[in-house]
Amino acid sequence: MQLEKYKIQQHNDTLLKAHERRLSYITSEIEHSEAIIQKVVDFQIAIPSWALGTGGTRFGRFSGGGEPRTLEEKIEDVGLLHSLNQSSGAISLHIPWDIPQDAKAIKALAAQHGLTFDAVNSNTFQDQPDQALTYKFGSLQNVNKAIRKQAVEHNIEVIKQGIELGSESLTVWLSDGSCFPGQLNFRKAYQNTLESLQEIYAALPENWKLFLEYKAFEPNFYSTTVGDWGQSYSYVQKLGNKAYTLVDLGHHLPNANIEQIVALLLMEGKLGGFHFNDSKYGDDDLTAGAIKPYQLFLIFNELVEGMDARGMNHATDLGWMIDASHNVKDPLEDLLQSVEGIMMAYAQALSVDRKALEEAQDNNDVVRAQEILQNAFRTDVRALVAEARLRAGGALNPLELYRSQKVRENLIAERGLKTVATGL
Amino acid sequence: MQLEKYKIQQHNDTLLKAHERRLSYITSEIEHSEAIIQKVVDFQIAIPSWALGTGGTRFGRFSGGGEPRTLEEKIEDVGLLHSLNQSSGAISLHIPWDIPQDAKAIKALAAQHGLTFDAVNSNTFQDQPDQALTYKFGSLQNVNKAIRKQAVEHNIEVIKQGIELGSESLTVWLSDGSCFPGQLNFRKAYQNTLESLQEIYAALPENWKLFLEYKAFEPNFYSTTVGDWGQSYSYVQKLGNKAYTLVDLGHHLPNANIEQIVALLLMEGKLGGFHFNDSKYGDDDLTAGAIKPYQLFLIFNELVEGMDARGMNHATDLGWMIDASHNVKDPLEDLLQSVEGIMMAYAQALSVDRKALEEAQDNNDVVRAQEILQNAFRTDVRALVAEARLRAGGALNPLELYRSQKVRENLIAERGLKTVATGL
Amino acid sequence: MQLEKYKIQQHNDTLLKAHERRLSYITSEIEHSEAIIQKVVDFQIAIPSWALGTGGTRFGRFSGGGEPRTLEEKIEDVGLLHSLNQSSGAISLHIPWDIPQDAKAIKALAAQHGLTFDAVNSNTFQDQPDQALTYKFGSLQNVNKAIRKQAVEHNIEVIKQGIELGSESLTVWLSDGSCFPGQLNFRKAYQNTLESLQEIYAALPENWKLFLEYKAFEPNFYSTTVGDWGQSYSYVQKLGNKAYTLVDLGHHLPNANIEQIVALLLMEGKLGGFHFNDSKYGDDDLTAGAIKPYQLFLIFNELVEGMDARGMNHATDLGWMIDASHNVKDPLEDLLQSVEGIMMAYAQALSVDRKALEEAQDNNDVVRAQEILQNAFRTDVRALVAEARLRAGGALNPLELYRSQKVRENLIAERGLKTVATGL
Amino acid sequence: MQLEKYKIQQHNDTLLKAHERRLSYITSEIEHSEAIIQKVVDFQIAIPSWALGTGGTRFGRFSGGGEPRTLEEKIEDVGLLHSLNQSSGAISLHIPWDIPQDAKAIKALAAQHGLTFDAVNSNTFQDQPDQALTYKFGSLQNVNKAIRKQAVEHNIEVIKQGIELGSESLTVWLSDGSCFPGQLNFRKAYQNTLESLQEIYAALPENWKLFLEYKAFEPNFYSTTVGDWGQSYSYVQKLGNKAYTLVDLGHHLPNANIEQIVALLLMEGKLGGFHFNDSKYGDDDLTAGAIKPYQLFLIFNELVEGMDARGMNHATDLGWMIDASHNVKDPLEDLLQSVEGIMMAYAQALSVDRKALEEAQDNNDVVRAQEILQNAFRTDVRALVAEARLRAGGALNPLELYRSQKVRENLIAERGLKTVATGL
Repeated sequence: MQLEKYKIQQHNDTLLKAHERRLSYITSEIEHSEAIIQKVVDFQIAIPSWALGTGGTRFGRFSGGGEPRTLEEKIEDVGLLHSLNQSSGAISLHIPWDIPQDAKAIKALAAQHGLTFDAVNSNTFQDQPDQALTYKFGSLQNVNKAIRKQAVEHNIEVIKQGIELGSESLTVWLSDGSCFPGQLNFRKAYQNTLESLQEIYAALPENWKLFLEYKAFEPNFYSTTVGDWGQSYSYVQKLGNKAYTLVDLGHHLPNANIEQIVALLLMEGKLGGFHFNDSKYGDDDLTAGAIKPYQLFLIFNELVEGMDARGMNHATDLGWMIDASHNVKDPLEDLLQSVEGIMMAYAQALSVDRKALEEAQDNNDVVRAQEILQNAFRTDVRALVAEARLRAGGALNPLELYRSQKVRENLIAERGLKTVATGL
Repeated sequence: MQLEKYKIQQHNDTLLKAHERRLSYITSEIEHSEAIIQKVVDFQIAIPSWALGTGGTRFGRFSGGGEPRTLEEKIEDVGLLHSLNQSSGAISLHIPWDIPQDAKAIKALAAQHGLTFDAVNSNTFQDQPDQALTYKFGSLQNVNKAIRKQAVEHNIEVIKQGIELGSESLTVWLSDGSCFPGQLNFRKAYQNTLESLQEIYAALPENWKLFLEYKAFEPNFYSTTVGDWGQSYSYVQKLGNKAYTLVDLGHHLPNANIEQIVALLLMEGKLGGFHFNDSKYGDDDLTAGAIKPYQLFLIFNELVEGMDARGMNHATDLGWMIDASHNVKDPLEDLLQSVEGIMMAYAQALSVDRKALEEAQDNNDVVRAQEILQNAFRTDVRALVAEARLRAGGALNPLELYRSQKVRENLIAERGLKTVATGL
Repeated sequence: MQLEKYKIQQHNDTLLKAHERRLSYITSEIEHSEAIIQKVVDFQIAIPSWALGTGGTRFGRFSGGGEPRTLEEKIEDVGLLHSLNQSSGAISLHIPWDIPQDAKAIKALAAQHGLTFDAVNSNTFQDQPDQALTYKFGSLQNVNKAIRKQAVEHNIEVIKQGIELGSESLTVWLSDGSCFPGQLNFRKAYQNTLESLQEIYAALPENWKLFLEYKAFEPNFYSTTVGDWGQSYSYVQKLGNKAYTLVDLGHHLPNANIEQIVALLLMEGKLGGFHFNDSKYGDDDLTAGAIKPYQLFLIFNELVEGMDARGMNHATDLGWMIDASHNVKDPLEDLLQSVEGIMMAYAQALSVDRKALEEAQDNNDVVRAQEILQNAFRTDVRALVAEARLRAGGALNPLELYRSQKVRENLIAERGLKTVATGL
Repeated sequence: MQLEKYKIQQHNDTLLKAHERRLSYITSEIEHSEAIIQKVVDFQIAIPSWALGTGGTRFGRFSGGGEPRTLEEKIEDVGLLHSLNQSSGAISLHIPWDIPQDAKAIKALAAQHGLTFDAVNSNTFQDQPDQALTYKFGSLQNVNKAIRKQAVEHNIEVIKQGIELGSESLTVWLSDGSCFPGQLNFRKAYQNTLESLQEIYAALPENWKLFLEYKAFEPNFYSTTVGDWGQSYSYVQKLGNKAYTLVDLGHHLPNANIEQIVALLLMEGKLGGFHFNDSKYGDDDLTAGAIKPYQLFLIFNELVEGMDARGMNHATDLGWMIDASHNVKDPLEDLLQSVEGIMMAYAQALSVDRKALEEAQDNNDVVRAQEILQNAFRTDVRALVAEARLRAGGALNPLELYRSQKVRENLIAERGLKTVATGL
């Protein structure tokens, strides 16, 4: 299903007057609103191919219908999102769930939808039907060299697929770890993993980045071999200057100060990008901004400040991806909400009075520093984000248009009610 | 120090035009803004007498100067806050830190400042110089009946003090618990505590309430005898219909869903009131709304819905108190920020479209339910809260006026730099 | 596969001498060792039918082979465990995973293996292929009365199945809850759940118990409708004296003091039983005693003290069940380890010098209280537990015998490598 | 007060027979018991000077009486502990709480008690009466260069004090951080801290080590500038090869896998030493081994394996210190319990069958690996630890002797009931 431009136009027309009133108000309230709008226009968040179907937990999965059955349909879905919000102009593939049969055709299809290919993701946390050796006891960490080799080769294969598609980065998330004390020799697990990563790194094209994601726990419940930012940092330092740490917001111990981690990784030149989602308990993979919107803002506050300090391009110098699971929502609606949540946080962070904040910090004026951040956060920037969508050709209210166009109903009609997309 | 009315008037005059522009915008954006403003006007948050000085941790305390040296000066400070925001019209005393020598005079002084006396607080977590028996191993739970008796009598004494001042509730927070496995027989500690509470309850005047606060840990680090809402609930159920649970936001285990606890206690008719603060790790006692403003909003969302469902009066049917510690901020500025944070959350909760939310819930429309709550939260209601202050005779920007009037400098000049207020 | 008695006998013969030396030492070290051995003999822990196959996570499942394909094979597996340790004399069924086609025959088969049927478990957290209405948005809490009715009827059906098999209790674990703020009206969800539970309760035979399990989170990641012990307690209080709270060790927020919860529920007469497992992060479902063996001991310390204080029979007055998931271990080996870990904790708790502990508590002698508990915990009671097995006809070293008899290899030969047992 | 040798002798004589029976049993049960005993004899744990008095919390402090009033009395107390257990042969001083007036005399006094001086500790988390500039907003991180300089100079002064006493390491624990979002620029705080540390490092004698401790939170409740092992590691890497990370067991986020952190820091050659204590919720500073004895064992399991792999000397190549607070116990009794708990964990770790464990790990035999570790943990090695004390000239049961000699009563008689030792 595709959304014709005129429908977006019609939708915008009906909402335009109210939008302009709000926009006019907010632009009168905050400085640099033009610059903020432009930055929001430029900012694109990649949609992961595995998030287009209903997610599940170990206790069950309640499919919603109309899920994409093929890579082509996944691209179609992301294209649909992008046509709605003009902010989802990239797709992040997961191999082997999404192996393109004909890379050229897939690339062309994506281009038709205005999409590029963001980081490709390898998978050594599951066994595939045709796989020789099992990852039950880990992949890159495995005590068995043959298994490590198999996992390394899979990653190299993923790089090759990525090259075909025009991707320029590889995200490595390892579930490697242990469930019980004594199961692993931590040091050897680390060293095996490092050696494996070095072999993968060696296969990386010059212009590529390797993102090494960390995670505190799950599916291993005693230790994880890339378990926290410190561990990821120690690996990517040893790997070289194409290796970076990737931060998934849900992959931390309770109460972790993620914004500080982000600031320090940026400072060290080792922050690679993000997997956005939100959570209350663990890796809950909820909609970005749904639980702790202030934390998301504080993270963007560090990103804007830190990237500017390094002269980085917000839109292109880090990898921006969603990684969420949609157990009780329509996945496409959820993704629209996630993108909106992220854009809000970004726009709010852009509106922070940096000079005043620096001054407050230099004077240890804690009260003032809080006022500055909370003023930015309390400011309602929805009209700015909507304006950015409008200028880029998207819809003023993507969710409303999605529903009024009965997109899900159409997808179910096209694809059937019982389809199950590959993914978690 | 007192703030003359004309200064507030002058301050408001200079800000009025900008305020009116914002107010006009927001009243055009949300329904029922008049009703919201009125409810915010009516809503008062009690200031605890122990929060007027610089707080500390076990590692040290960095006093800021000008702290109130007497109960009279504490009342003066709360009066000052109230004159600024017209939302702090009550003071919550802590005995024995604030024993009035002449209750009548104190009451008159408070009335001069437009203040009433909210819940009185007993203290059986510290030993006082003249105290016969030590609370080292607990008070109401103590294995020694004489110690329990001493603690019961202290509480009864606190009730008496409260009666003199016109207070109508007693807050009991117990640090009782244990630091090591085996130290306590949990059952006997519970039963001793229950018996002690029953004796205190028996001394309660007809029109009084007893608030039983719970806390997961600190200063005891293995168990707390009123450790969670379930325990507090089980006590207050047994005590009778004047006994209620008091929720301090910082007293929970990591990741607790406080808003659900609040909703259920309300449903059971056993929610008594709040100690507001914010926290990231434990009982951090930070400014309300400084860390998790969305959580604060969600709590008020439950309060508004639940109190309305029971036909309760928002302003008077629960106890609203701040309980924070101001280690790195001017305590009065911090209290202004806390009150503002609470008012924001309340106003946002009032603006939730209840009918639409109920409809979304009835249809399991999770996406829509989130939109409704987040719309309310993203709406910038600062002008409504400011308007409420304005109408009540307060300042449009209390913090700005506080600073421009050099209140802290004046207090230091009056009281000295080395004063240390009683409290933590 | 069955283990002939003579093989156990042979195994015991070779280990007997060393065992007797250890036993003789330990019986000379601790008092009442005879009584402890007898109590351990009497103590039986039910094996859940869903724990006999390899478990998994949402990220994958790595089956191990030889898993039971039918209820009959599950009974056979539990029989095997019981023949090894003589401590697993009961099986806890999960409906609809284990619906007996012929209850009489199943009951007879179980009796052949010396097994009885412990609590039956309903399942309203997954949709079954033939199910009319979906539990996607909850079961007993559902806003839709027809769905609630379906879930109630399923529970009543489970009771009926249980009656046929001689079970005398129903365990209700609900995944009901919400993933996002606003999704649920907490109060209505509670009230719907209560009403549904009342209907189930009404169908309970006179001699039955209803166990209501609580869980903090997962698979719902914002709220759970029976979320903590306080909520479960409030439901079972309202239901009546056949309703009890069931404690699953993994279902708590971080740092919860589970032993205190256990002590208080016992005190209130509302503790129904346990789902044993261990965890580091969440509901990790690891082997009992594998991560926090001291916590397990402290829980049994409360159980022994509290049950004795109420004159309860350790073996029969609470429900003792394992609930674990075996992702990286042979499930049968893991269950042997779990039972051993539980028995160790029980035997250690039995060896605590209660009189001395009470005395230390009465004197606030915290140092002595710690010494008493740690002495019991540091005492090596393995020989006592082994002796209990020996007397009951089990193996001195069940794990060793299991391996030397190549049980898993035999099961794979019998049942195949690719079998997947029903369960998580 | 000193304990005459003959009293220890008498005490041991009465317990000897029972001890020998236990020793004989355990040496027949485990291999290499002689080697274990010798290693335990050699292992010394430093006592911190600040742990000899009753600790407190922000809510109060309940002194116990007889606390050391001077550095001389502190040395006397540690000497007493050492005479009892022969395992506390070092003292770790805290400046400025323990500035020696006459270093030579202090050194001589310590030598008389068989004590040496372990790491010296600086304090820039409190203001001292005569201090020019305040640490309210941090020390080494401070935005004010003059404050950073003052803190650097204090550390250099501490090094000088340490040189006089024969200490060879400096422990830097910073409370530096922030309480509110926006208060700090994380990057600048890091860079200021690094620069300050570099200046301190430059003043370090050739044979000295600098230990940089990390802590997740408290007394700052939003961020800590050396907040986790990754941050400490990134500083000490930059400082040079005399700089190491120090691990305090209580300084982690909930559920952290500390043993893995320890193993990785060892692998990197950056583990410096320990502050031992135990905790359930945060930095609870409870007796080592009192809450999670299995975790303590697992940490020692990594230490023994990792140090042996690097050819390190267990006794001397890392810093072993206690850091606890004794709120409800006699501090000296508590320290005896902590040392005993640590020694137990060490002895159990030494008894692990390393070869078998390695083999199990190489075969992914998770069940066997758990058995090996738990066998070591369940083995009652108390007689080995007691034998080590006996051989070294200490008491078989230090706590019993301490009590029977009425040490605390004597100290109170000597020093008075109201003494309060410097410290927390």
